[in-house]
Amino acid sequence: EEVSKLLELKARLGGDDGKHQFVLKTPKGTRDYNPKQMAVREKVFNTIVGCFKRHGAETIDTPVFELKETLTGKYGEDSKLIYDLKDQGGELLSLRYDLTVPFARFLAMNKITNIKRYHIAKVYRRDNPAMTRGRYREFYQCDFDIAGQYDPMIPDAECLRIVHEILSELDLGDFCIKVNDRRILDGMFAVCGVPDDKFRTICSTVDKLDKMCWEDVRTEMVKEKGLSEEAADQIGQYVSLQGGMDLAERLLQDSKMSQSKQACAGLSDMKQLFTYLQLFQVTDKVVFDLSLARGLDYYTGVIYEATLTQATPAPAAGALGSGEESASVGSVAGGGRYDGLVGMFDPKGRKVPCVGVSIGIERIFSLMEQKVEMEKVRTTGVQVLVASAQKNLLEERLKLVSELWSAGIKAEAMYKKNPKLLSQLQHCEECGIPLVAILGEQELKDGVVKLRTVASREEVDVSRADLIEEIRKRTAEV
Amino acid sequence: EEVSKLLELKARLGGDDGKHQFVLKTPKGTRDYNPKQMAVREKVFNTIVGCFKRHGAETIDTPVFELKETLTGKYGEDSKLIYDLKDQGGELLSLRYDLTVPFARFLAMNKITNIKRYHIAKVYRRDNPAMTRGRYREFYQCDFDIAGQYDPMIPDAECLRIVHEILSELDLGDFCIKVNDRRILDGMFAVCGVPDDKFRTICSTVDKLDKMCWEDVRTEMVKEKGLSEEAADQIGQYVSLQGGMDLAERLLQDSKMSQSKQACAGLSDMKQLFTYLQLFQVTDKVVFDLSLARGLDYYTGVIYEATLTQATPAPAAGALGSGEESASVGSVAGGGRYDGLVGMFDPKGRKVPCVGVSIGIERIFSLMEQKVEMEKVRTTGVQVLVASAQKNLLEERLKLVSELWSAGIKAEAMYKKNPKLLSQLQHCEECGIPLVAILGEQELKDGVVKLRTVASREEVDVSRADLIEEIRKRTAEV
Repeated sequence: EEVSKLLELKARLGGDDGKHQFVLKTPKGTRDYNPKQMAVREKVFNTIVGCFKRHGAETIDTPVFELKETLTGKYGEDSKLIYDLKDQGGELLSLRYDLTVPFARFLAMNKITNIKRYHIAKVYRRDNPAMTRGRYREFYQCDFDIAGQYDPMIPDAECLRIVHEILSELDLGDFCIKVNDRRILDGMFAVCGVPDDKFRTICSTVDKLDKMCWEDVRTEMVKEKGLSEEAADQIGQYVSLQGGMDLAERLLQDSKMSQSKQACAGLSDMKQLFTYLQLFQVTDKVVFDLSLARGLDYYTGVIYEATLTQATPAPAAGALGSGEESASVGSVAGGGRYDGLVGMFDPKGRKVPCVGVSIGIERIFSLMEQKVEMEKVRTTGVQVLVASAQKNLLEERLKLVSELWSAGIKAEAMYKKNPKLLSQLQHCEECGIPLVAILGEQELKDGVVKLRTVASREEVDVSRADLIEEIRKRTAEV
Repeated sequence: EEVSKLLELKARLGGDDGKHQFVLKTPKGTRDYNPKQMAVREKVFNTIVGCFKRHGAETIDTPVFELKETLTGKYGEDSKLIYDLKDQGGELLSLRYDLTVPFARFLAMNKITNIKRYHIAKVYRRDNPAMTRGRYREFYQCDFDIAGQYDPMIPDAECLRIVHEILSELDLGDFCIKVNDRRILDGMFAVCGVPDDKFRTICSTVDKLDKMCWEDVRTEMVKEKGLSEEAADQIGQYVSLQGGMDLAERLLQDSKMSQSKQACAGLSDMKQLFTYLQLFQVTDKVVFDLSLARGLDYYTGVIYEATLTQATPAPAAGALGSGEESASVGSVAGGGRYDGLVGMFDPKGRKVPCVGVSIGIERIFSLMEQKVEMEKVRTTGVQVLVASAQKNLLEERLKLVSELWSAGIKAEAMYKKNPKLLSQLQHCEECGIPLVAILGEQELKDGVVKLRTVASREEVDVSRADLIEEIRKRTAEV
């Protein structure tokens, strides 16, 4: 019997004309945004863009695909995650993997040597999606970068101030911004006896300290990467250090660290950075942490990463397996200085120093969707519904709603000739429309409109001449 | 000598390490948006989205690519213009060709039977680009649609009101919205003796009347499509007709037209539509025009198209060849009713009636970029630059700019330890920053800031306590 039911279902879905046999879904790792999700997304974007604009940033946009060769050699092993377009004749194209490489291409192509810009757009990675944790194959990046030759650490400090402002304003709970410097890491590796050719690979092992304990990291260094136990233990002592300006000062005096010119340059800049961070009043959340490594190859100076330190609200039941919960917290912003990338695109190799930050907007969307009561999210800002209590008043309703639109009022009327008053009022409840302008024979005779406040059910007659002003006044209060 | 210079250039560009041999460009038919273009784009979007929101629309978003089969069989011959992704294992994907098919897929997949939504996003067509005329391979669409079973012509009239509001507000000059109905066209073809199987092909020939004269259209019908001369001439009489509600009434009495049930249904609805358009006060720009055909197969009822009727401002010298100018005017909005599309995605074929309008945003961008003085477009909204007149005041500048950011003021300070006052003032002139807050030893001692108005060069001392209020007041006036 089960089988026959299934066969019936299949027959129904399949049809015999073959027209309806396709699967009704979005591609793997992607999703639609419904109106409620869009409302949350818009709110988050407004906060973030508001901050970028407060700091005087301009914005640019680039195509969703680039010449394949533009992306070649920029992402190391992750290049295998790039989406290529089919060769349909003409150029070979790939979907953008991030916004940083297109930005560098844009600067080199237009010979721009200084700009402060933000760019919010989707990027594409053929990764294993983990959509319950906000990891998608199509996802937003939200980047702010300062390009140009300036005095050290001033733009770098502004990037950190921006992270501080955005995370404070989004009100996602307490957070911590870890700071380090590629030069300090490289200097540390050198003085601990890591061979030059192992810097990058040891660096990516250190990068795992946010997910693995030191013992496991040490094992990987020694067993997998062939580092001496002595070197690993020396690294272990350094990467446990956290502090502020004091730590930078102490390490400048450190007998080993001070032997590395690179480390000293990084440490003096770190001191300078903290001076500016104090002026920017953000040192309460910033920690100089020698274990922060960050994976990307192109960083050349300061690096940073912001994480939420409070437990996140419990996700929707069943959405996450055990053990995945903690991973859903993690990094919500990160970035650093990359002084070499633009030069890779310039025919003469001219460098444009850059520092930037990327806001982990998809994680923030996930957190916001857990935090707000999605049922109550309003998806429109409609201020008033033009309704009628009696039949045959469609034309009067349309005339009034048209007047309201002309006055810039957000207004609706139902698309029915004779809707019931109750269903008009229900529509307001469902959509959170605060006011109803009710027309009836009597009101038309008297030249008034019955203005009803949905929440309190109060009704007052307002003359047509005063209606617009009254609606503005009442919805400004709301 | 010329040759040797070129060879030298080539060698320089090529390099011998092979690192710099790539071409620095965006893919064919695509472009970057620079900050000035983005500022214009943002202004246009704000106007349009403001209108959509005034009408109570929600917004959704869908992935940039869809399963290939979702797009199959929706675009007829134009399917060859779809960008396919390379098969890298997994699903076969294509970039979206428009926003209407993804919208229909979204409705069917989520079983949504009524929604008023807008969607602004980029779509992709492997067409021959004509970038000087605003025709790209990657371009924005800007769609507003009303889905749901409602009383006839009410949502249709709202779509026309929206076109009227947007084109009026964007202030692009006079415009005209032509309206027709697929049922009127089909009825007309029937009573003129066009064989059933030639309706679509004759319809697409009629669609060319905006670019070709009637004689040429007639020739194509008769010579290429094999229509009888008699039928062609009868069509010719109808398609020359233009009017309003009166024309609909006249045609309902027309001895031939009245023989077609379809035509009569379309004509009664057209009368109804004009009643609503009168209430919406938009009949000044709307013309019932029997020559309007529109290419897309999926329309089932009312169709419309808005064109600018004034000559557009001359484009940048040399950008357009002669004869291309008129083509740069053309349609700036279009749409219609498509009651069958969602049903194509529903396993049971359930229909969701839809009517919508697409704003020709790329043409509008082109026109706006010609209309505004691009040199004068501000790309940031910075209200005040924190400057210093003397050396060694970087820290004081950073402290003050930080205070301003905390107060929500859009502010900048230059990233130099000791910038010259002149270069700070020049920066304001270039970026249109209206105010400068100047710090000096004396000001710091007195607890004041010298607030300078860039335009008038006036300077007044303002106490630190009053500064934020004073900046707000002055920039609110601006």
